[in-house]
Amino acid sequence: MNALDALNDLLAREFPYLADHRVTELTDRGLTMRADPTGFQIRPGGTVSGPDQMRIADYAGYALVKHTAGHTLSVLLRNVSLSFLEAPAPRALTARATLLKLGKRTAEVRGDVLDDTRRLVATAALTYTVR
Amino acid sequence: MNALDALNDLLAREFPYLADHRVTELTDRGLTMRADPTGFQIRPGGTVSGPDQMRIADYAGYALVKHTAGHTLSVLLRNVSLSFLEAPAPRALTARATLLKLGKRTAEVRGDVLDDTRRLVATAALTYTVR
Amino acid sequence: MNALDALNDLLAREFPYLADHRVTELTDRGLTMRADPTGFQIRPGGTVSGPDQMRIADYAGYALVKHTAGHTLSVLLRNVSLSFLEAPAPRALTARATLLKLGKRTAEVRGDVLDDTRRLVATAALTYTVR
Amino acid sequence: MNALDALNDLLAREFPYLADHRVTELTDRGLTMRADPTGFQIRPGGTVSGPDQMRIADYAGYALVKHTAGHTLSVLLRNVSLSFLEAPAPRALTARATLLKLGKRTAEVRGDVLDDTRRLVATAALTYTVR
Repeated sequence: MNALDALNDLLAREFPYLADHRVTELTDRGLTMRADPTGFQIRPGGTVSGPDQMRIADYAGYALVKHTAGHTLSVLLRNVSLSFLEAPAPRALTARATLLKLGKRTAEVRGDVLDDTRRLVATAALTYTVR
Repeated sequence: MNALDALNDLLAREFPYLADHRVTELTDRGLTMRADPTGFQIRPGGTVSGPDQMRIADYAGYALVKHTAGHTLSVLLRNVSLSFLEAPAPRALTARATLLKLGKRTAEVRGDVLDDTRRLVATAALTYTVR
Repeated sequence: MNALDALNDLLAREFPYLADHRVTELTDRGLTMRADPTGFQIRPGGTVSGPDQMRIADYAGYALVKHTAGHTLSVLLRNVSLSFLEAPAPRALTARATLLKLGKRTAEVRGDVLDDTRRLVATAALTYTVR
Repeated sequence: MNALDALNDLLAREFPYLADHRVTELTDRGLTMRADPTGFQIRPGGTVSGPDQMRIADYAGYALVKHTAGHTLSVLLRNVSLSFLEAPAPRALTARATLLKLGKRTAEVRGDVLDDTRRLVATAALTYTVR
């Protein structure tokens, strides 16, 4: 089993109710996650809700820190700051997580959320506690 | 019908799938919202997920801006910054939204999230675009 | 020497170039700091610069964490999120720092910045690393 | 006079007291700014203060929005979220500002702060009001 499948397997065991989110690419300092729109809450105007956008950014960041720091560590979201740039249509979302820092006790991830036309719809700064 | 019931009615029409969230108190510059735990996603370790905590903070802030600025206006979340302080047990959450500023084009809300023992578990700064 | 003077003495030794900032009140979970406008950079339009507003919020938060956790600990700003609400006139600023959480490794402070008419001009969420 | 010199001239007229900050590169969606360490406040441990790091990120973002949206517009910082990753030595800092969105009323900029070894020391999300 390759690293990508192994990571998705681990995530599926921890978060069985997030099966509509899957890591689709692993790179040196980052990963890409894709979410099917089936579980999204749609806001008035026909846009994906903010918490759904936060979820994919956070889940991608969590997966990246676990993958990089080791799966036995506990990884907890401590701070998140999100800017919503465009209202995404109720279709699939993609998150690109990039590791900015992995320290002994904290990790910093940038999480960009894209709609299905590859347009940037939100950007997040995520700080995790690692131990 | 009093102001509290009227507000809950309006929210229920806009967000029928968030019926487990209800405004329980309206004050001069704020409101309190309560969410039943039925819809929460529970994270490993038995804690309410970050996106669920964001949702109640955002929904309370949205309700407060709508209530204060007028229900005909469009209110969109533009930025949110969240600090997670404690891991809430999978029981009801409460959010206290306080209006810090209502300008012509933006509104700023503080959203504190409490668990069912009245302990502060997260705090949010929410900026909305109003038009 | 009372606790307030002792704290100002300690800060003055660490930050001799911030002598225009002084703690004016210590309470149970917070403190108030005042900054003279002498060192402020004034922006076009006659308002105090954003970094000056951040400085007083951060310095007040740092002083509060040091005072509460103990002066021998190292306290480092890890994250800050600031919302600027009103443009303060180039006069004295006050910051009210409130301790939201003091954990083993992190501290969370709310820092509200007021102008000399007691109007809220900015609000900050500050996360410190403590060790 | 080329676009880079013209931009620095305009900034110098608006912010004469920030002459130690200069735009060094203009690209399609971004710019680079460099700050000499002369004006920095040095923190205990020998590191550049947080407000100094915020200043270069904000100033680079402001310059980028002015340059892109037009110099006659008013550009005001509304929100900033900063993560401090490494403690920069008291030498020159560089900020890379990237325009993520330019809307009719707001602009979103990412501001990365690098030390003189090109290491990322802080990252900022900056939201400006434009009118």
